[in-house]
Amino acid sequence: MTTDEWINETLYPDWGQRFRVKRELARVRSKFQDIVVFESFSHGRVMVLDGVVQITEADEFVYQEMLVHVPLLAHGDVRNVLIIGAGDGGVLARVLQHCGVERAVMVEIDGDVIALSKQFLGSISGSAWSDPRAEVIVGDGIAHVRQAPDASYDAIIVDSTDPVGVGEVLFTEEFYENCARILTPTGVVVNQCGVPSMQAEELRDSARRRGKFFAHSTVYVAAVPTYVGGLMALGWAAKDATLTKISAAEIRVRAGAASILGTTQYWTPEIHAGAFNLPPYIARHLPG
Amino acid sequence: MTTDEWINETLYPDWGQRFRVKRELARVRSKFQDIVVFESFSHGRVMVLDGVVQITEADEFVYQEMLVHVPLLAHGDVRNVLIIGAGDGGVLARVLQHCGVERAVMVEIDGDVIALSKQFLGSISGSAWSDPRAEVIVGDGIAHVRQAPDASYDAIIVDSTDPVGVGEVLFTEEFYENCARILTPTGVVVNQCGVPSMQAEELRDSARRRGKFFAHSTVYVAAVPTYVGGLMALGWAAKDATLTKISAAEIRVRAGAASILGTTQYWTPEIHAGAFNLPPYIARHLPG
Repeated sequence: MTTDEWINETLYPDWGQRFRVKRELARVRSKFQDIVVFESFSHGRVMVLDGVVQITEADEFVYQEMLVHVPLLAHGDVRNVLIIGAGDGGVLARVLQHCGVERAVMVEIDGDVIALSKQFLGSISGSAWSDPRAEVIVGDGIAHVRQAPDASYDAIIVDSTDPVGVGEVLFTEEFYENCARILTPTGVVVNQCGVPSMQAEELRDSARRRGKFFAHSTVYVAAVPTYVGGLMALGWAAKDATLTKISAAEIRVRAGAASILGTTQYWTPEIHAGAFNLPPYIARHLPG
Repeated sequence: MTTDEWINETLYPDWGQRFRVKRELARVRSKFQDIVVFESFSHGRVMVLDGVVQITEADEFVYQEMLVHVPLLAHGDVRNVLIIGAGDGGVLARVLQHCGVERAVMVEIDGDVIALSKQFLGSISGSAWSDPRAEVIVGDGIAHVRQAPDASYDAIIVDSTDPVGVGEVLFTEEFYENCARILTPTGVVVNQCGVPSMQAEELRDSARRRGKFFAHSTVYVAAVPTYVGGLMALGWAAKDATLTKISAAEIRVRAGAASILGTTQYWTPEIHAGAFNLPPYIARHLPG
């Protein structure tokens, strides 16, 4: 492979990003999807699933920090966390930063994603895989939420591919209904809902489905450089509607107690609180 | 031209966006730069200068609203506005939305950009070109700020290309020194400072230069879908450091009085106030 080779993201048929490839590290057809890991010139190592960029070393902090710290600190006393997907280990690593977390169960359907991440993306997961609080299951997240006991988790973090292909079943009504059942009364579920400037339909569908089983359903936003298209929407559903209203000052106190303050590159208490303020171009896709 | 033709943005050597082209509308070598206007499948019409995407019909609102409404409403009584660059007319159109604005002088160096924008991007400028408050000058913005009288503008909005090529002179110390001189004591100058995840050097340089001539210099952020790379930094310099601290509630009152409220797709009073909260990965490039 020469250094003039480029990889084009194929998420959208008519627009997208491309990376110049320094070195291809792996190309695997797993039981579920095509997996490519390569070294880029611009963003460190990059993992691509079925042509869609999942994570880069350079900017993974944006997505992980916002997907993890926001629900955990808004809740304020999370002990049991369920992670679905997130085979790169980045979400698990951020969850385990919270010293109050007693147990983090991670269910990733594709063992090859985990294996390749351990081999090539160790900078993202750090020591998460060997943390005694982590329980990593290669299996079906849908089946897990179907079988889990009532009120067994304080937070559910869904870090899936887009609602096409292998990730599609994570956006169904049955899934959200089970999430509501297995969450504690103050529990919260978050999931990635795509980039509204390009994926408004997914945003509308996902919000409608979540809303059926939770008293409070919305999205919050983060600008992830390599999820191109401006703000990404992160889905939020909880039984307690006050969780999104907590002041930056209170979040700062909690983040200090949880050992998060000062460890982040995107998340701050103010950005946390502000992330629920939606631009009209996003808000208009949400019910009510 | 077939519909299989793509245009690759060439801003960065190793990463970038690409558009599938529905129809090329214009390709001109002006006195200053290469100008391409095309119809995309994904973002309506797009203007590209020297290989860099300047504006698309689909998402221009993000950039224009944040570059215009934030300084004008933070100031609160802007009557005379200087716009440098912005040949597409989009900034001018947003400035003239503010009913308190008495005069908007726009200085664009490249008359071909204006001509092509009038021909192909009329949806962006609306009726701005024929507004009696608008004074459009094809000329050198540097010379204009050098010659303008002291304290003659309440706000200066610099909508330039990146600090390479034709736009480079708009990021110099002499330019900012003149901006400080021709602004009123409560005046503010804003400019685009690129995307910090890719252009940290430009952010640092520009902030350092602004800081020499203004008591308060910072940046605020907006996520513009086709300025790929996450948050874009918009430079801010003012003599009065309180302008960035105005509450969302007060901004809402001002926006109502100025006839802005309800006209926006990205800007809201809350997003306005929150845009000055910077992620650490951006804040660390700013002085002190």
